[in-house]
Amino acid sequence: MQVYLDNNATTMCDPQVVEAMQPFFSELYGNPSSLHKFGTATHPYLKKAIDQVYTALNASDDDDIIFTSCATESNNWVLKSVFNDLIVGGDKDHIITTEVEHPSVLSACRWLEEQGVKVTYLPVNDQGIVEPHTVKSFITDKTALVSVMWASNETGMIFPIKEIGEICKEKGVLFHSDGVQAVGKIPVDLQDVHVDFVSMSAHKFHGPKGIGALYIKNSQPLSPLLHGGEQMGHRRSGTLNVPYIVGMGKAIELATTNMEEKMASIRAKRDRLEDALLELSDTFVVGSRENRTPNTILISIRGVEGEGMLWDLNNAMIGASTGSACASEDLEANTVMLAIGADNELAHTGIRLSLSRFTTDEEIDYTIEQFKKAVARLRAISSSFAKVQPTPGGEAGECHIPHHMAH
Amino acid sequence: MQVYLDNNATTMCDPQVVEAMQPFFSELYGNPSSLHKFGTATHPYLKKAIDQVYTALNASDDDDIIFTSCATESNNWVLKSVFNDLIVGGDKDHIITTEVEHPSVLSACRWLEEQGVKVTYLPVNDQGIVEPHTVKSFITDKTALVSVMWASNETGMIFPIKEIGEICKEKGVLFHSDGVQAVGKIPVDLQDVHVDFVSMSAHKFHGPKGIGALYIKNSQPLSPLLHGGEQMGHRRSGTLNVPYIVGMGKAIELATTNMEEKMASIRAKRDRLEDALLELSDTFVVGSRENRTPNTILISIRGVEGEGMLWDLNNAMIGASTGSACASEDLEANTVMLAIGADNELAHTGIRLSLSRFTTDEEIDYTIEQFKKAVARLRAISSSFAKVQPTPGGEAGECHIPHHMAH
Ligand SMILES: Cc1ncc(COP(=O)(O)O)c(C=O)c1O
Ligand SMILES: Cc1ncc(COP(=O)(O)O)c(C=O)c1O
Repeated sequence: MQVYLDNNATTMCDPQVVEAMQPFFSELYGNPSSLHKFGTATHPYLKKAIDQVYTALNASDDDDIIFTSCATESNNWVLKSVFNDLIVGGDKDHIITTEVEHPSVLSACRWLEEQGVKVTYLPVNDQGIVEPHTVKSFITDKTALVSVMWASNETGMIFPIKEIGEICKEKGVLFHSDGVQAVGKIPVDLQDVHVDFVSMSAHKFHGPKGIGALYIKNSQPLSPLLHGGEQMGHRRSGTLNVPYIVGMGKAIELATTNMEEKMASIRAKRDRLEDALLELSDTFVVGSRENRTPNTILISIRGVEGEGMLWDLNNAMIGASTGSACASEDLEANTVMLAIGADNELAHTGIRLSLSRFTTDEEIDYTIEQFKKAVARLRAISSSFAKVQPTPGGEAGECHIPHHMAH
Repeated sequence: MQVYLDNNATTMCDPQVVEAMQPFFSELYGNPSSLHKFGTATHPYLKKAIDQVYTALNASDDDDIIFTSCATESNNWVLKSVFNDLIVGGDKDHIITTEVEHPSVLSACRWLEEQGVKVTYLPVNDQGIVEPHTVKSFITDKTALVSVMWASNETGMIFPIKEIGEICKEKGVLFHSDGVQAVGKIPVDLQDVHVDFVSMSAHKFHGPKGIGALYIKNSQPLSPLLHGGEQMGHRRSGTLNVPYIVGMGKAIELATTNMEEKMASIRAKRDRLEDALLELSDTFVVGSRENRTPNTILISIRGVEGEGMLWDLNNAMIGASTGSACASEDLEANTVMLAIGADNELAHTGIRLSLSRFTTDEEIDYTIEQFKKAVARLRAISSSFAKVQPTPGGEAGECHIPHHMAH
């Protein structure tokens, strides 16, 4: 058996999405910007895809949704263009974000700091989220932008975007949310929540890798990151990636149709897996279930290095993660676990399991079995776990588990 | 019959490319940055694709070739990062480019001008190309970058990149070439020519739309445009678009294998078409055939508006263009024709026909027939042509055709 539980890193492209894209490679291959039939033949399909995205997000006709090549581009676009428009070209000097954003936000912010921007990295609470009053207390007259993720790729924790949106609106500060782990996973209603910019990426909801979008409320100004031809009303130039736009439309439609049902089914499997793993001693899951995306578990197993665990799971053909795939080549501590106050040792024990609507009950059974086997093997050889084990097989004694890591 | 003669705008994805990409949507769908087998299973295919690109361009192992989402991104990356690294972060203040670059270079340059950069737009000669001595005479101590396209999307004219490269090297100025219309169409040997950065886009050589690359000589520094995860050695972040990377590798391999043969076959068809169209009175093709990409004709038909011609061809199911697809929604004069000195009326008469290796002899026959029909119809109703026709059907008399437009 082969079990893919790394759906927060990327997902399988839904076969229906692949089928929808197929005609646009070698049949309807015209450039949509061309005036002839080869070009215009693509227009109804593009229109449909755009409608699918608007519908899925309940965006208003007054809003823009601009296709990009990925959420990394969308995030860089917002941060760098707000920098350009309001800091270089205005009198602001400050951006607020969080300590637990994805590297595409954090690295861009570090770069902005090199350009002289003041960046506040807000701390998270013991649930791994930023509290609205924290955001509020850091906004000044000089703040150009608040950028807070909608849900965490590492923990699945859902941030209070609606409340933060209200604060930003009241203070007259632009609000961006990296919605990559929310869109297609939980309901996102952009007429209910006040957010100026939302980034998303199709490959997180069974669309293809290499296409994303940026939602822009009220089609407000934001200078382009990619200048050039007149595509997308000059907001994002480059020949349109017709197959992937069609695929993203299909993928978001599939992900958001009967969403409550899909969420419930994933959640049931996730909870069953989580319950089974928590039967093991000294295991802790970050964040309350109710406030988490229904597919995610970030579990810490005292005495078991995340990399060792990954290795054993991998040998059993189970794909999991120690955290963001974008940083997986560095064998570093889980930064989100550090941010919520885990000690360094514990932060090395995080394992993220992320399900999808394609995950089956058999896969869950198999994963529980293999996971327990791996933990037993790794604890048997773990010196750090032995040290804190007062009696073999018993509960941990002197081990200081930060209270907020506890399930 | 349906004839696609707009291959400079975009091409059909080669069915072999589509086939090569297929497994990476729903089978080998792992994120290459993941440590598990789902991720690492993609590595040999990525490596092969990268090798295919290096081989096709004869790049050195010391060089970097970084995948991007399109040439628009590659062009913006070079221009904006050189601006950032050498102008904002250094003591340069000047960039040199040409009047006939693609909008992705020209719009980015206009944006740089708004940021205070001095940009020189070099004029082209009567062949539509920039001469090396012109480049040389504009380089100063303050010049950060020279950006000159390798071949024109509108005329197909090939620029003296080798000579310009030598000048830039001698002067110690960075040299970028937008290679979009050269790569896959004519031999590009990056160890023979000295160029620091080359942009390319797969959909111009029968790969998919929405993937490109930037060649970076000697892996020299250039700050990222997309900051984020550690993909591509931190040079361009964002989850790798595995299917399209594999597709681009396959496409460039197909385009450059037996290239001389492929070029000769396309050239033979192009020349036959061109000869036939030049039998019409008052028709002029821009630039000498020898120095043009083998697939391109930019023809001007005195008295026939480009848009009218497009319309008639379109009704005959022939796809052509009046110029860059990226600007096709504006019914403006052909800017390249204006740049080489055509009067405004003539600049409205340009029609670009661009072939591919999939163009057949039957399609050429049909196009010749339909093209002549359309010209006859449109001239019959054209008032501007009537004015300059001394005798019905005869040669143009008082019509001042700029000599350098002549074939
Ligand atoms: C010369 C040239 N440069 C750049 C581009 C931009 O390529 P893309 O649309 O793939 O970004 C094109 C084609 O559109 C082109 O012909
Ligand atoms: C929260 C979050 N933001 C941004 C990204 C970046 O998405 P992409 O790699 O498609 O650019 C990811 C995933 O990689 C993510 O999980």
